[in-house]
Amino acid sequence: MTDTETASRASLAGLTPGQLRSMFANDGWDGDTCGLALGYEQANLVVLPKNDAYDFLLFCMRNPKPCPILEVLDVGDSVSKRIAPGADIRFALPRYRVFEDGRLVSTPARVDDRWRDDLVAFLIGCSLSFESALLASGVPLRHLEQDRICPMYETTMECEPAGRFAGRTVVSMRAIPAPLVPTAIEVTARYRHAHGAPVHVGAAEQMGISKLEEPDFGESISMEPGDVPVFWACGVTPQIVAQQARPQFMISHFPACMFISDREAHVGAI
Amino acid sequence: MTDTETASRASLAGLTPGQLRSMFANDGWDGDTCGLALGYEQANLVVLPKNDAYDFLLFCMRNPKPCPILEVLDVGDSVSKRIAPGADIRFALPRYRVFEDGRLVSTPARVDDRWRDDLVAFLIGCSLSFESALLASGVPLRHLEQDRICPMYETTMECEPAGRFAGRTVVSMRAIPAPLVPTAIEVTARYRHAHGAPVHVGAAEQMGISKLEEPDFGESISMEPGDVPVFWACGVTPQIVAQQARPQFMISHFPACMFISDREAHVGAI
Repeated sequence: MTDTETASRASLAGLTPGQLRSMFANDGWDGDTCGLALGYEQANLVVLPKNDAYDFLLFCMRNPKPCPILEVLDVGDSVSKRIAPGADIRFALPRYRVFEDGRLVSTPARVDDRWRDDLVAFLIGCSLSFESALLASGVPLRHLEQDRICPMYETTMECEPAGRFAGRTVVSMRAIPAPLVPTAIEVTARYRHAHGAPVHVGAAEQMGISKLEEPDFGESISMEPGDVPVFWACGVTPQIVAQQARPQFMISHFPACMFISDREAHVGAI
Repeated sequence: MTDTETASRASLAGLTPGQLRSMFANDGWDGDTCGLALGYEQANLVVLPKNDAYDFLLFCMRNPKPCPILEVLDVGDSVSKRIAPGADIRFALPRYRVFEDGRLVSTPARVDDRWRDDLVAFLIGCSLSFESALLASGVPLRHLEQDRICPMYETTMECEPAGRFAGRTVVSMRAIPAPLVPTAIEVTARYRHAHGAPVHVGAAEQMGISKLEEPDFGESISMEPGDVPVFWACGVTPQIVAQQARPQFMISHFPACMFISDREAHVGAI
């Protein structure tokens, strides 16, 4: 994160989801969406040709922890009806990634020029929603205290495959003070639309993670004495699984540049 | 229900789900599955050609209360992997319905002779699971006390459509003593895989139901003084929606002749 971005980020603090999407549409911001529109649900984006949509939808349904579906747009439709009615996902995000045959070909600020009538957009839950709930419940988040991106790891935990879509679960890790681990689990379990309860507590090596200090994505964080590493299924999973399936065409959000919805994060909680 | 069936039903009381499925496969029973394998999850069955599978899966995902998906088998596969591993759904149910272009053409005891490589089987949650939980929580069920099939009604509540699949929600009604309505809601809310919390309490007319004593499916029940009618989304919804879409081919369970899984009903509860 550059200084310029940080400065601008402060000025975005009070904006509503609609104002932010409109600013992104007008190229007013190409940074990440972390900390923006706090309390509103943010979403991962995966766009695939109709031809791949059934298998991908089934993959998400079979693996609800890494892939909690918030909305699936109708074939060819680019406008959200449910979580941000009227928002056009072709230019409502700060930045995108475009893939051809599984290879990244560009990272544009809008994708309306690449849109096709056979595309299906999937909006998938994101852990930003449960992070506000954790903070509100008194659970500290080390990566925020240390101004870092949450560390993420590829694991050996195989997802349940569907058609061509198969792969291993990616997890995010938060270092939680031991007495607060039950609270962290109880709170996030209510956020099934944002990955829900953790998938593992403590034993990183059982998931094939050898070095906590070397995450595969995000940044390493310093654990405090008495912290326990707690692992949640991560929305990077469907991104990587989709990419590995080498679809003929695919659009996704640029890392950390999410779709900001109009839905308050606690609304989906149970 | 005939006397012969009732007699046989008693003899089936102690059988496990696997023993029951095996008896059904050998034509040992063509009655309904109500009250069998108590405590195990039972499922509605909808089988459609792959061509319709994406829209139907999306329909279920968009309408999780009437259509809670328990399992979707792989294309052409007739054997459950998740809720009853190894069970072949082509002869694990007592009786089926076969539709061509939306018309009922037969009600056979097995469908392996009609199976095709392009078929996709959907197993959808059923209210039998939450009924045991209601009883265990001290909530009486009038239709069981009165030995009747639970009354069901077509409503004016439109489901969210997906492709060709569209229609109105069918609800089941249970008459609940007023002071136990909160308990009934709290308990069933935990059974999201079995239709979850009610969709309406009390005001039947708001859903377009004019006469409680004339259900569209099932049987009428007598309400006790102080009972409140409580309405849950019903698994008949996806059956009717699928039928109305007039798919070229479709198989479903015969009414009340469900797929009995190996999963204990409380396991899916949250």
